[in-house]
Amino acid sequence: MRKKLKIAILGATGVVGRNMLSELEKSGLDIAEIKLLASKRSVGRKMLFNGQEIEVEEATDSSFRGMDVVFGAVKNDIALRFIDAIRQSGALFIDNSSAFRLNDDVPLVVVGVNDEDIFKHHGIIANPNCCTIIGLTAIAPIAKLSRIESMVVSTYQAVSGAGEAGMNEYNDELKAVANNEEYEPKAFSDQIVSNVIPKIGDILDNGYTKEEMKFQNEGRKIMHDEKLLVSCTCVRVPVLRSHSLSMTLNLEREVELDEVIDALKKSSAISLPLDREAMPLYVSEKTYVEVSRVRKDLVNPKGISLWCVGDQILKGAAYNAVEILKKYING
Amino acid sequence: MRKKLKIAILGATGVVGRNMLSELEKSGLDIAEIKLLASKRSVGRKMLFNGQEIEVEEATDSSFRGMDVVFGAVKNDIALRFIDAIRQSGALFIDNSSAFRLNDDVPLVVVGVNDEDIFKHHGIIANPNCCTIIGLTAIAPIAKLSRIESMVVSTYQAVSGAGEAGMNEYNDELKAVANNEEYEPKAFSDQIVSNVIPKIGDILDNGYTKEEMKFQNEGRKIMHDEKLLVSCTCVRVPVLRSHSLSMTLNLEREVELDEVIDALKKSSAISLPLDREAMPLYVSEKTYVEVSRVRKDLVNPKGISLWCVGDQILKGAAYNAVEILKKYING
Repeated sequence: MRKKLKIAILGATGVVGRNMLSELEKSGLDIAEIKLLASKRSVGRKMLFNGQEIEVEEATDSSFRGMDVVFGAVKNDIALRFIDAIRQSGALFIDNSSAFRLNDDVPLVVVGVNDEDIFKHHGIIANPNCCTIIGLTAIAPIAKLSRIESMVVSTYQAVSGAGEAGMNEYNDELKAVANNEEYEPKAFSDQIVSNVIPKIGDILDNGYTKEEMKFQNEGRKIMHDEKLLVSCTCVRVPVLRSHSLSMTLNLEREVELDEVIDALKKSSAISLPLDREAMPLYVSEKTYVEVSRVRKDLVNPKGISLWCVGDQILKGAAYNAVEILKKYING
Repeated sequence: MRKKLKIAILGATGVVGRNMLSELEKSGLDIAEIKLLASKRSVGRKMLFNGQEIEVEEATDSSFRGMDVVFGAVKNDIALRFIDAIRQSGALFIDNSSAFRLNDDVPLVVVGVNDEDIFKHHGIIANPNCCTIIGLTAIAPIAKLSRIESMVVSTYQAVSGAGEAGMNEYNDELKAVANNEEYEPKAFSDQIVSNVIPKIGDILDNGYTKEEMKFQNEGRKIMHDEKLLVSCTCVRVPVLRSHSLSMTLNLEREVELDEVIDALKKSSAISLPLDREAMPLYVSEKTYVEVSRVRKDLVNPKGISLWCVGDQILKGAAYNAVEILKKYING
């Protein structure tokens, strides 16, 4: 890959796309050109990159020609709509949608967990689901001490997981509820302020939502462990942009708690706050995962329970995508 | 016990005490007299019972004389301060504090789960922790199909668990956050609006909080199963008055999902909403527990996962306490 990069962001005006742009700014990567691609209605909108105004262009099949890297911050249908054009351009596609995550020839990468998979790509590298990134970052140091056989996970997911629409609805609804005014939810099935919604996405035949199955499906691929079992409950909570996970791990061999905590402390992707617990309020706009409440499980002697929190937009999406490119460039 | 009851509420002005009064109003019990007891600073305050004004009196050792029943809606220290006087009065003490819950001669009762224990009392019947009541109500029909060996529970607990102070702080903070104003939390360690706090109460030597251990300790006593194992993570969420629980049960024998759902449907204490999931917003001020997301666990073939929600103040406290008395009176 040539030194000065030409980079396109597909879906540049959405919350993840905008954060990809600002993460690229901070990345230290040598960037020759940034192309901002979106749907027709965003054309002409201007965004800043290193103090320079860049105009948003409409994404078309010819948009990707000459690009080295395309970041995808769009839903599956749009990613699928443009994949042939991106392939033809020869650009590396680092995609945040779930369209290609489980394809055999597409590496699915949590930076710091399975970086080596980056180099096995055939034109596409997929960014995992936000909860998968945050949860696996937290437990990766433990997986080095013992294979993780299974996990029970309950999530506390921020409204940012539903994108800009979710965040705007939350902020508007918060004002309405504070002022005792009526508010009609659209982005969510129900009022989310002063409520929690225990269903994210459609429920499949096995009783789990697609979102819940991602942890097991993506986790198996990232951990290179086809037998990993994950029972997950995904819950939307009235929090702006950081996801929290309550995780109980069943390890293959019993590991001392001190060993677990030492391993967590050594990870540069993890922060263990000393004077408080890990909380969404303190992780917003941070690129690390906070971990706390690490303790032996009371049910299984080989079990470890912990709590972890990460910014859904950054660690769970934009930051990980840009880190994938950095690892790829810098080796 | 004579027919027309003389009832005192110790801690009548707090949120649980006030709800005990309104639950007594709805109870159909034949009540001759209600005595409202509180600390000195509430003396003279008037509260309505069946349209009649009752003045709050200061609780002293002589307050309980002639009473048939005393409801306790105070913290442990106040319950302990008055227990001798209540015993001497001969009144039955139905106590919501945790001071006596694990005493051998004190029945700990979730109505609908272990009603038979009510009649083994020696002057005190204890009301369990709110999460214990809500969770055990939800799983009691399953426990009849198979012994429950262990559970992994993550909670989503409302601010009402911290009493009036918690609810007031939440409402005030909600307004402040909506208006971008500063707010200094007092009832909680941190801002709770747009946040979740994964620690309720002090952390013990084993890494679990007292609140988290209640589920196992109280669960063993209520289920009459000294071997029950519960690994619990208690989390405060920005919800006003209903607690939610994500529960994964490991059963002794495999039970078909249909059987589980049929058993849940038959419980009069449970509602399974048909057109939406169980959510705090819809359970507030209700006396039943909503259950949804019932499904086979993906980790353990003998496992069942479910989600349940109950009003913390009513089902988790005041309603259960008054129901204990009704069962005791009506047999």
